[in-house]
Amino acid sequence: MSAIITLTTDFGLSDAYTAEMKGVILGINPDVKFVDICHTIKPQNITQAAFVLSTAYRFFPERTIHIVVVDPGVGSDRRAVLLRTPLADFVAPDNGVLSYIVQEVADKSVTGGAVKLRQGTTAISLTNPEFWLRRVSSTFHGRDVFAPVAAHLSLGKPPADFGEPINTLVTMPLLYPHKTANGLTGHIVHIDNFGNLITNINGQELPQAKDGIGVLVGGKRIQGVCHTYAEGLDLLALVGSHGYLEIALKNGNAASFLGVGTGDQVRISVQTGGRQ
Amino acid sequence: MSAIITLTTDFGLSDAYTAEMKGVILGINPDVKFVDICHTIKPQNITQAAFVLSTAYRFFPERTIHIVVVDPGVGSDRRAVLLRTPLADFVAPDNGVLSYIVQEVADKSVTGGAVKLRQGTTAISLTNPEFWLRRVSSTFHGRDVFAPVAAHLSLGKPPADFGEPINTLVTMPLLYPHKTANGLTGHIVHIDNFGNLITNINGQELPQAKDGIGVLVGGKRIQGVCHTYAEGLDLLALVGSHGYLEIALKNGNAASFLGVGTGDQVRISVQTGGRQ
Amino acid sequence: MSAIITLTTDFGLSDAYTAEMKGVILGINPDVKFVDICHTIKPQNITQAAFVLSTAYRFFPERTIHIVVVDPGVGSDRRAVLLRTPLADFVAPDNGVLSYIVQEVADKSVTGGAVKLRQGTTAISLTNPEFWLRRVSSTFHGRDVFAPVAAHLSLGKPPADFGEPINTLVTMPLLYPHKTANGLTGHIVHIDNFGNLITNINGQELPQAKDGIGVLVGGKRIQGVCHTYAEGLDLLALVGSHGYLEIALKNGNAASFLGVGTGDQVRISVQTGGRQ
Repeated sequence: MSAIITLTTDFGLSDAYTAEMKGVILGINPDVKFVDICHTIKPQNITQAAFVLSTAYRFFPERTIHIVVVDPGVGSDRRAVLLRTPLADFVAPDNGVLSYIVQEVADKSVTGGAVKLRQGTTAISLTNPEFWLRRVSSTFHGRDVFAPVAAHLSLGKPPADFGEPINTLVTMPLLYPHKTANGLTGHIVHIDNFGNLITNINGQELPQAKDGIGVLVGGKRIQGVCHTYAEGLDLLALVGSHGYLEIALKNGNAASFLGVGTGDQVRISVQTGGRQ
Repeated sequence: MSAIITLTTDFGLSDAYTAEMKGVILGINPDVKFVDICHTIKPQNITQAAFVLSTAYRFFPERTIHIVVVDPGVGSDRRAVLLRTPLADFVAPDNGVLSYIVQEVADKSVTGGAVKLRQGTTAISLTNPEFWLRRVSSTFHGRDVFAPVAAHLSLGKPPADFGEPINTLVTMPLLYPHKTANGLTGHIVHIDNFGNLITNINGQELPQAKDGIGVLVGGKRIQGVCHTYAEGLDLLALVGSHGYLEIALKNGNAASFLGVGTGDQVRISVQTGGRQ
Repeated sequence: MSAIITLTTDFGLSDAYTAEMKGVILGINPDVKFVDICHTIKPQNITQAAFVLSTAYRFFPERTIHIVVVDPGVGSDRRAVLLRTPLADFVAPDNGVLSYIVQEVADKSVTGGAVKLRQGTTAISLTNPEFWLRRVSSTFHGRDVFAPVAAHLSLGKPPADFGEPINTLVTMPLLYPHKTANGLTGHIVHIDNFGNLITNINGQELPQAKDGIGVLVGGKRIQGVCHTYAEGLDLLALVGSHGYLEIALKNGNAASFLGVGTGDQVRISVQTGGRQ
């Protein structure tokens, strides 16, 4: 039975952990198609994994199954969960790594802690060992629990078979921009391979007139928001391919140039109306 | 409809950009098989991408579709193109990244600038938005334009549907070896994972008698050309697996040892006939 | 004809070597499913490749074909082999990279050198050029010999077609723990992406009462063996997901912290019975 399963982990590229998961899945459903989203999440960096997954998953066909294994609490009493949303299925530890997804299907904005899910969404605590590997290690539930559960799910097994329904999931406080006297202040949530700084400031929160926008980051000020990397002179701001404000250095690495990192502030000042 | 699509990008391995492209493609043609050629092209290094693609593509089945996204001019007025050759299809920015391929199907040797294509080859400027994602970002045409175009192409859509036919493509000046008084001078075009130096000197340009060949690189002189890595003593020259002269260090890294890089000269002197 | 082929190489991630192998295979059997086990084996590190392969292969469905290309002797007179065991097929250079697999199907414990295989296992020296690429380079048998052989094997060709039966394979001395007065001494055989130290000490060789076990590594002493990473305080020992004793640093990198590497000693002392 054809199905797509994606994988997002902090396993790196030098071990066989990811391959073992794929082997387990193919043993249960030989027709699965894998797409690796990212395996170089920094060890145990739940925030990074949450961001990378949330940007990628919406480009996949409906009912794709997304497995996430960034799991510092493996073997402890942290829950493992299956989350079914109208778009996709997620199999992951219940440690906040699904925060951005949960936010989309939660009753209100996510501010950390456990949140209530909206109707039409199903969450299951993976408590039924019937679908696990026969011998479950205490250190690698990705292979011994998540992989076989996702494989059986891809064969059409209903979520309820895998354990107990739950209606809250652990989330982490997400960094939202806040309004200031003459604009707003956000944060860098991701730095990509090109050194581009991706912020949590949605392009739709910016005023139409892009010339009047000032962006303050790493001690530098950028005037105006461009449309393309090619357009700017050196340091430039634009609304990136996921809809968020991004700071880039033309033909260079903005993160190194500015010496900034994830979590650092980005301040927007908006020059309001009038000629002068 | 089964089809192979390969991907060559400078996206690195820490972002979800490649996965997003695969998600888009699977949404259009769920039967595509992906092969990743390389995602660690140095950011915006068109020359490296051109070389890596050109060595790899000829080992794929005919009609494989090769997408290349090394695209510093994304969002500017650079064209995006589909090139159909007798062997394969290529979807890429028109920035020189297809230079080696174009050279094979061009009317004369490529020396930079725009070249005329040979008959039997089709090039299309991707101007028809009907096959793009509904919302096209100005910074990620790999996902929003190239991916959906390649996916529709894999379903059998004819090239002409995707835009306007063109008969020139941008190429970059390729480094060819030139003849000298007693041999030839070429350049290092690629350094592989083992530190082997791959040159642009075709093995067929070397004389049959390999003992009389001297190779000068990084201030060192190598006498003779070996057949295998195991055969040499320490620093050795051989004709590598793509047919080009290669310099290797037995059980070591020739690039580090010699302190040389891409673009550096390699000089060949040939001791002609006779005893002396 | 559907089949799974895995790849384990030292090719790294910046060249097209792996992609060329996949292209060759798909040209022979378009229905192959690839799983990459690892491509970042340290150049020519046969020991590391042998370990990584041996832990991964048992999680794949029966009759999966595993190709290994860590091949410093390529082009010399080292043999290339196909090994068929009751579980799987392996295509690799005969340089010891299959040592752990051979050990499982050998008549006695492997201590280095050539070993005799057990009945029910088939080994073939790949001498029949009929299944190779037409032009075989002397430096890349992975693409020119192993890939097409594995592809034809995946189509159901019997092993005997590929060459001469042999009954010994080259193996390397494997590091086994040895018993000491009050316990045993083993070695670190692998360090994973998290900096966890994986030893060659099988969890089943440890006494049931885990509290009385002392682990000495890198000048530090760990008392007792935990069940999970979350359980320990900082430096901790546990039996990892492959059944071997592993040393980890809670939320950190044990290898960096201890300054130890592959091959270093790990000493186990067991406090035997009784009150005292």
